[in-house]
Amino acid sequence: MAAAEDNLSLVVHGAGVIRLENRSVPEPGRNEVLIKMHSVGICGSDVHFWQHGRIGDFVLRKPMVSGHEASGAVIKVGSDVTHLRTGDRVAIEPGVPRENDNFCKTGRYNLSPTIFFCSAPPDDGCLCRYYVHKANFCHKLPEGVSYEEAALIEPLSVGIHACRRAGVTLGSNVLICGAGPIGLLCLLVAKFMGAAQVLITDLYPERLLAAKEMGADITVQAKRETPQEMADIVSGHLSGMPDITIECTGAEACIQTAIYATRSGGTVALVGLGSPMVNIPIVNASSREVDIKGIFRYCNTWPVAISLVASGRLNVRSLVTHRFSLEDSLQAFETTHQGHGIKVMIRCDKDDPL
Amino acid sequence: MAAAEDNLSLVVHGAGVIRLENRSVPEPGRNEVLIKMHSVGICGSDVHFWQHGRIGDFVLRKPMVSGHEASGAVIKVGSDVTHLRTGDRVAIEPGVPRENDNFCKTGRYNLSPTIFFCSAPPDDGCLCRYYVHKANFCHKLPEGVSYEEAALIEPLSVGIHACRRAGVTLGSNVLICGAGPIGLLCLLVAKFMGAAQVLITDLYPERLLAAKEMGADITVQAKRETPQEMADIVSGHLSGMPDITIECTGAEACIQTAIYATRSGGTVALVGLGSPMVNIPIVNASSREVDIKGIFRYCNTWPVAISLVASGRLNVRSLVTHRFSLEDSLQAFETTHQGHGIKVMIRCDKDDPL
Amino acid sequence: MAAAEDNLSLVVHGAGVIRLENRSVPEPGRNEVLIKMHSVGICGSDVHFWQHGRIGDFVLRKPMVSGHEASGAVIKVGSDVTHLRTGDRVAIEPGVPRENDNFCKTGRYNLSPTIFFCSAPPDDGCLCRYYVHKANFCHKLPEGVSYEEAALIEPLSVGIHACRRAGVTLGSNVLICGAGPIGLLCLLVAKFMGAAQVLITDLYPERLLAAKEMGADITVQAKRETPQEMADIVSGHLSGMPDITIECTGAEACIQTAIYATRSGGTVALVGLGSPMVNIPIVNASSREVDIKGIFRYCNTWPVAISLVASGRLNVRSLVTHRFSLEDSLQAFETTHQGHGIKVMIRCDKDDPL
Amino acid sequence: MAAAEDNLSLVVHGAGVIRLENRSVPEPGRNEVLIKMHSVGICGSDVHFWQHGRIGDFVLRKPMVSGHEASGAVIKVGSDVTHLRTGDRVAIEPGVPRENDNFCKTGRYNLSPTIFFCSAPPDDGCLCRYYVHKANFCHKLPEGVSYEEAALIEPLSVGIHACRRAGVTLGSNVLICGAGPIGLLCLLVAKFMGAAQVLITDLYPERLLAAKEMGADITVQAKRETPQEMADIVSGHLSGMPDITIECTGAEACIQTAIYATRSGGTVALVGLGSPMVNIPIVNASSREVDIKGIFRYCNTWPVAISLVASGRLNVRSLVTHRFSLEDSLQAFETTHQGHGIKVMIRCDKDDPL
Repeated sequence: MAAAEDNLSLVVHGAGVIRLENRSVPEPGRNEVLIKMHSVGICGSDVHFWQHGRIGDFVLRKPMVSGHEASGAVIKVGSDVTHLRTGDRVAIEPGVPRENDNFCKTGRYNLSPTIFFCSAPPDDGCLCRYYVHKANFCHKLPEGVSYEEAALIEPLSVGIHACRRAGVTLGSNVLICGAGPIGLLCLLVAKFMGAAQVLITDLYPERLLAAKEMGADITVQAKRETPQEMADIVSGHLSGMPDITIECTGAEACIQTAIYATRSGGTVALVGLGSPMVNIPIVNASSREVDIKGIFRYCNTWPVAISLVASGRLNVRSLVTHRFSLEDSLQAFETTHQGHGIKVMIRCDKDDPL
Repeated sequence: MAAAEDNLSLVVHGAGVIRLENRSVPEPGRNEVLIKMHSVGICGSDVHFWQHGRIGDFVLRKPMVSGHEASGAVIKVGSDVTHLRTGDRVAIEPGVPRENDNFCKTGRYNLSPTIFFCSAPPDDGCLCRYYVHKANFCHKLPEGVSYEEAALIEPLSVGIHACRRAGVTLGSNVLICGAGPIGLLCLLVAKFMGAAQVLITDLYPERLLAAKEMGADITVQAKRETPQEMADIVSGHLSGMPDITIECTGAEACIQTAIYATRSGGTVALVGLGSPMVNIPIVNASSREVDIKGIFRYCNTWPVAISLVASGRLNVRSLVTHRFSLEDSLQAFETTHQGHGIKVMIRCDKDDPL
Repeated sequence: MAAAEDNLSLVVHGAGVIRLENRSVPEPGRNEVLIKMHSVGICGSDVHFWQHGRIGDFVLRKPMVSGHEASGAVIKVGSDVTHLRTGDRVAIEPGVPRENDNFCKTGRYNLSPTIFFCSAPPDDGCLCRYYVHKANFCHKLPEGVSYEEAALIEPLSVGIHACRRAGVTLGSNVLICGAGPIGLLCLLVAKFMGAAQVLITDLYPERLLAAKEMGADITVQAKRETPQEMADIVSGHLSGMPDITIECTGAEACIQTAIYATRSGGTVALVGLGSPMVNIPIVNASSREVDIKGIFRYCNTWPVAISLVASGRLNVRSLVTHRFSLEDSLQAFETTHQGHGIKVMIRCDKDDPL
Repeated sequence: MAAAEDNLSLVVHGAGVIRLENRSVPEPGRNEVLIKMHSVGICGSDVHFWQHGRIGDFVLRKPMVSGHEASGAVIKVGSDVTHLRTGDRVAIEPGVPRENDNFCKTGRYNLSPTIFFCSAPPDDGCLCRYYVHKANFCHKLPEGVSYEEAALIEPLSVGIHACRRAGVTLGSNVLICGAGPIGLLCLLVAKFMGAAQVLITDLYPERLLAAKEMGADITVQAKRETPQEMADIVSGHLSGMPDITIECTGAEACIQTAIYATRSGGTVALVGLGSPMVNIPIVNASSREVDIKGIFRYCNTWPVAISLVASGRLNVRSLVTHRFSLEDSLQAFETTHQGHGIKVMIRCDKDDPL
């Protein structure tokens, strides 16, 4: 097993301060497993903690290991663990409820206020060599699913949770605002759930090109339109208003567009988060019964996501545009920060280098 | 039958201009019935059209008969009508879809964009002596239900639709903002659907007293608290955050309170309408998956409401605090405008005077 | 326009008696359109009425035109029709509610007890040259959808309604019993709605081969297994019990298999109808909360089905294995009766012969 | 604390063999509490294990303590328990999942195949002086809720789970077959959830009298009617078919009645269990889309039930018709076995005797 000095970890210390450090290799508790990390994707929130030291009420008060889109191999198993063994390859679900409260008992464990979540302060993430996690939230991978695909299940889960809460189903016409990684994954999932047409908007043509390649039926580059103008453009393209809008930017103008654009009786799912207070055309939404539903992470997505990726019909691999080794993870963060590519992936396993 | 000169009707002509006029008695079409009106309640929107000549996008462009909370007796029946006969007492459902579009086919006919609606411009209401309505939206009253109760089914329907969309069910803890007629009816319905505790807020102690008498478990007089302070007061009283908030004021501060106050995974139903654009704590709502659902009128409520009123277990009668004859309806409007009492009822039937 | 003597129609007169007759060309009423029929598929129920003169409580008491899977061109439009014009190509939805009852108002119009339904006694079907239908249940076809595809929307609708009621969604594992036309369409729809794995069973290898070609993940030929043995075989193949079983045979043994096979908390949808009384392992179903839901035709499926077929991603064309002209429709019925092929299609339009 | 020799327990040894024994007082584990038992109700299943040594697949293979409708006082607290303290009065939820599997994660923990359940072989029940239970499934009682009411929350939970799964809501018309304790509790809950009318049937007039006193709108004594005759009688009394039927007898004839009686699009909830295989009019159910849903115990009911009982509006106390001390529990079982009264309650606490 690895020496204690060899648990290289990427640690955020505060706004603007991030560095690689050696931490000790942890021991798994009775219900835990020790994982030799393989692939960890970088999320916008990881970069945000590095840049600003906080996201809303989540404030960095002590150094924190980054990373929560992750996969690896089990190398040690706690005494009470029955469904995993040494050598199993797993995808890590980063949110683990600490108590079996009413949110857990009713199937919405993502809302448990005391939940542990990788790289949400004060909880450490898993961008490191060795990491311990509750076994129950490590999902065994079938043979056909790669470590990179497994790491992508975390952002894919956001797309699944968004499409589920939005009620995407057979024949839905869907507007997606924003063609970043989450918007693209919402697109993939919405099409997979039987959406008839998906229209996606973004400011940047290269992102719309990626969306087109991943199956968007229509792409629209947003310019200086007002929200109501944008809504009209959308319904013109779809020959009708979309049933569902999935808002992935967090921008006030896009949230307004989402409401104006959605058909009466439809749903706006808010995935992107921006300003805490947003000016909303509430009479328009209410008098047309357009429901507004926020998305907070996900629950009950890993088993489904793994089976879909394993089926070979849901292709998430093309999202990965850049790869770095753990030793180069500062450069990886810089790449994400500068908005290059779609998804930047970090390889943590020295025994399986890039 | 009544002479044409005897169809006394209360007609709004524009902002500030309302008067009693004689209109001709209409003839029912094949699917229609002619109704000798009995009781018509005054709604805040009736007063608003009189005062301002518009509500949002509904603009008065020609004179319009007022009134849509109504009941009466069938006195003439169209040739294709099978379920009603002369002499039947009916409650009038004021919203009648004009075409069988997809909203109708999927059970949400209230959202049909071409719907007819009594006293929503340009459609005439039923505050008059004789009125023609589609038979299919006239609901026959069983013996035990009075005309006044039947007229109250319209505002009761708002309460039913709000509680249904909000998901009130066995054991729900519910916050209601605003103890006007609609807030009180939401209270009645929520308790009837099995809510464990209902807390209701208002600015005025006399309205809270009425709420207490109608079954509110807790009443809170709002003063100068911030929305977050108000949310804390609510959760203090309920020993926990409410599952559901039904917002009946339309005030921005109350909408904000509704969001802060509702538990994670709960629902805010917006019944009151005010300013078209409202500043909303959207990150708070989204990151706790508090859904925001507007209410537009109602659908599929009359049969249920009639059976509940007929059961004798749902007492709506005590809402009526003032009664006027049709001849005195200007005075009735003035009474509502000045905020006296809860519900003002107008008696249209000369043969059954007050 | 066609002469009255030229409305060739296939008429069932009673058990074993079916013949081509000339009927008069009907005139559309105000809300109706006259359709020059193009393609009509043969359904098992059409053959059953011919063979037995009845299906359950539907008893043929007078001659009835056959056919209800149909499409054609509008050639005359009633005075109140606004959304269709002469020349429009339409798919015909055969079930048209006669009154706006509570089933209609709540979005389940297929359950309306007084509904008109093509070729369900005593209502005439549309296997003829000229046919009148309520305009509101004629769905305009976009350019890319052929008449044959349009006629297939009727059986496709059964698949959609079954998968919706069964709750098929992202990642579902689905067992389908029976690989006839309806089973195959359930398969197509289930995959389209995001099912992870679909296992389909049948007695005949050639039907399983067709299923494989249409996307079945696993096919199992049923032999002499008991229902519980079959359930074990299914869970062995899926490495777990299916979430949902769609039963398309109506056979008692298959209904029992469906219950034993479905995971706790899952759903069995019964599409196939056979014996009125069936012996069901009800303690097994109840103590595992396996819900049993029957399917009666469909509602609200045509708009969705048309948009899916138009998208080019849902291929129904390959179901059609035989084609006949209207003049040869007795031969077409014989072909279906003998169990040849999958779907037999009749061409009614003399101006567009085979 | 109690001496080990003083944990008097009622133990079933096999069909016909039940006796009081002294067992040792257990020690609570880290997540457990030791409870000084106060009140335990007798369930039909307790008697059934005594009489037959088995219920379906649950077979008694070693001696088992009886009892699962229970309440008591916490007298010792495990080291990891935070929400309970010594002296807290608690209602015991008898079903405790042993692992956090997908059933638990999705909010249906009652379906977890490895669940622990008091007095379901091989798991011991709590009809004894001292009993250890997982703290997380011990629900603290507010002041106004008595121990007897707390013990009744278990059968009340069956009623809640049945009414929830059946979809009882505002205005529902409900048929309940069987006026035993579970039928009566379904009645109480259905009325509390806003049912318009509840009709209850039974063979015995005295049980129907009890139903009438507990709020049944209509009672019907079943005699020698066929299921279809009974369905007609029901719809005659309700002036229409019930939306929902809750079947609490398990008898084949009643299950058939339930299906024939329920309106198209309605739901039959099966609560009573009888013969493993039952002959069901499946074409009738399917062609009217009457859903059949079994009930297995309950989940997520205790918090709701406690708040309702605490509100004082849901009166369960009148169900208790007989009381015995633990020492007399054999006599209590005999009383239940002979069908006397409604609910027999056993007092386990020597310090609070009858």
